[in-house]
Amino acid sequence: MPETHLRRRGALRELLREREIDALLVTDLLNVRYLSGFTGSNAALLVHAGDSAGDESRTIFCTDGRYLTQAGVEVPDLERIIERRSGAALAERASRGGSGVSRAGFESQHVTVDGLDTLAEAAGAVELVRAPQLVERLRAIKDEGEVEALRMACAAADRALAELIAEGELRPGRTELEVARDLERRMVANGAAGPSFDTIVAAGPNSAVPHHRPTETVLAAGDFVKMDFGALVDGYHSDMTRTVVLGEPADWQRELYEVVARSQAAGREALAPGVPLRDVDTASRSVIEDAGHGERFLHGLGHGVGLEVHEAPTLSQLGKGTLEEGMAVTVEPGVYLAGRGGVRIEDTLVVREGGPELLTLTTKDLVVV
Amino acid sequence: MPETHLRRRGALRELLREREIDALLVTDLLNVRYLSGFTGSNAALLVHAGDSAGDESRTIFCTDGRYLTQAGVEVPDLERIIERRSGAALAERASRGGSGVSRAGFESQHVTVDGLDTLAEAAGAVELVRAPQLVERLRAIKDEGEVEALRMACAAADRALAELIAEGELRPGRTELEVARDLERRMVANGAAGPSFDTIVAAGPNSAVPHHRPTETVLAAGDFVKMDFGALVDGYHSDMTRTVVLGEPADWQRELYEVVARSQAAGREALAPGVPLRDVDTASRSVIEDAGHGERFLHGLGHGVGLEVHEAPTLSQLGKGTLEEGMAVTVEPGVYLAGRGGVRIEDTLVVREGGPELLTLTTKDLVVV
Repeated sequence: MPETHLRRRGALRELLREREIDALLVTDLLNVRYLSGFTGSNAALLVHAGDSAGDESRTIFCTDGRYLTQAGVEVPDLERIIERRSGAALAERASRGGSGVSRAGFESQHVTVDGLDTLAEAAGAVELVRAPQLVERLRAIKDEGEVEALRMACAAADRALAELIAEGELRPGRTELEVARDLERRMVANGAAGPSFDTIVAAGPNSAVPHHRPTETVLAAGDFVKMDFGALVDGYHSDMTRTVVLGEPADWQRELYEVVARSQAAGREALAPGVPLRDVDTASRSVIEDAGHGERFLHGLGHGVGLEVHEAPTLSQLGKGTLEEGMAVTVEPGVYLAGRGGVRIEDTLVVREGGPELLTLTTKDLVVV
Repeated sequence: MPETHLRRRGALRELLREREIDALLVTDLLNVRYLSGFTGSNAALLVHAGDSAGDESRTIFCTDGRYLTQAGVEVPDLERIIERRSGAALAERASRGGSGVSRAGFESQHVTVDGLDTLAEAAGAVELVRAPQLVERLRAIKDEGEVEALRMACAAADRALAELIAEGELRPGRTELEVARDLERRMVANGAAGPSFDTIVAAGPNSAVPHHRPTETVLAAGDFVKMDFGALVDGYHSDMTRTVVLGEPADWQRELYEVVARSQAAGREALAPGVPLRDVDTASRSVIEDAGHGERFLHGLGHGVGLEVHEAPTLSQLGKGTLEEGMAVTVEPGVYLAGRGGVRIEDTLVVREGGPELLTLTTKDLVVV
């Protein structure tokens, strides 16, 4: 996809020119991947602001000798240099006569305090200035190739859960750990490179722990079983939570589920370009507050997903800014009754004019297994 | 293991007193885990230098609300506070009257440039000073509990490979990807939480790529097959490489294998407390250089393993310092003949007086499958 990466670097160059930065030293590996397609474990990229979106001739990529061949395949369109200390090597390049760089941005959200010393030493007379979150800002808006990867990741998770239930493997007698490993295995069988984060399976009272890690706890009839899991496809992360009941639900379970489901629907319906991030959180949260459970919804409503499972934007009361067309986000309210059980329902969606596109297609009706 | 963590914090306090640092703000999650036992994804620790190794009363742990229950179980012995911004919350604690902290160290190898702003704002009048790699230095020397975890991780990898070969599943006709997934599945079946890094399976000419990623390439008779893989057990990473031949080896394959095997043996034999790190690299590398392949050994000899798959010390010409009793390291020379094939042989070992302890027990004779 050289054209995709070319377009992304063009968008970045606009941000650099706005900030009067001559070049950006990209050292965050996911940002390097986003801008170049490289997927190895050591690399950096120097992107010159240039004078037009098409001026690519001076973009330089650096990785180490292990990735000589891989870099040729993945980054055929850029000048490549091979150095172990990739960031410093590019800082040194920027300092050479004729590079046209007097102010170079660095990713201050990623470069460590010690790492900046190394870069500054290599950069010599070039001034290093903070330029945080520029690529992350671009990454928040997904292009269609990225949405397709997310769609496949979400489908792998959907299918894994559907198979698990259809084959009777979500049942009393199995442990949380067995169900978690089973879901992960089925996601891989459905095309995932692996799980996109540590799978959560939480049964009975454990479902009241928002971030429970699966244990040897045995699933029992009457339990809520909360499953929060996702698949990794082409580097993109899906994220979905479903909460089911094993056997006939008690009244309190139906009521709790119904509140969270209404809250989640309100959050989804609030997703539209231009809506303030915190308003989405408020739309969902107010349903839970009105039901008297406000203090039992212990976390933000959702987050962006993409090359990271948690990335910009943040859908919470702390969120700054507004939704934009093409953002991929989760909507995941939850209510947790300590010692009894909890419900969380989470989808991954893409913000669109005319209503969000739902990527996680598993039903949100209360599933009785 | 509260005693283990207590002992580790005691050793850290000695380092702090040597440096006249009143307290260390530990924000690297693996360092927090090493010092406290906590395994969640957000936490920090404030360790006061104190006036004796037993003075623990002011050590404070912080995590966020998701981990309230887990922190109580994993870190029962420390004062715990619950705040989302864990590092800043502890910096603020250090700044309070009565904390006894005027100079606080921070992990400058881990804290980002932007992150330091956040800490400094919270720390108020407390001076923040760089204190890099202190916990990493302690982590380089493994205690017996850590060696046992490494032993189990290495055993899971040994057994996975033994089963793969015994069941005839390492054979012409399978793809690199199939073999890689098979090894990973077998490691999990043998007690691993997962692979400790992305498994490398490289067949035929691909074996000449040091860091090849498995593809749909089909294994063929006469191929070298290089497998670099490891298992994760209790957070500890094993790392092993074996190179086998499918069918009768050609003369060049036998010769190449023999050189690398002798080089690897020389590296292992050089492991002893007090030996300069670069001398170990030299001992192994000189065998390959004498065979005329010096320029085809493209990487360092090895690295420490533990809570990270690559950690201190570095066994290469860039390594500084000497080996110490209890260090766990890899020894992994390789020779790569572009377009033909390559051989790497890698073990994980613990440095001991009287000779290293080998943790990866799979034979290093040339295996003909």
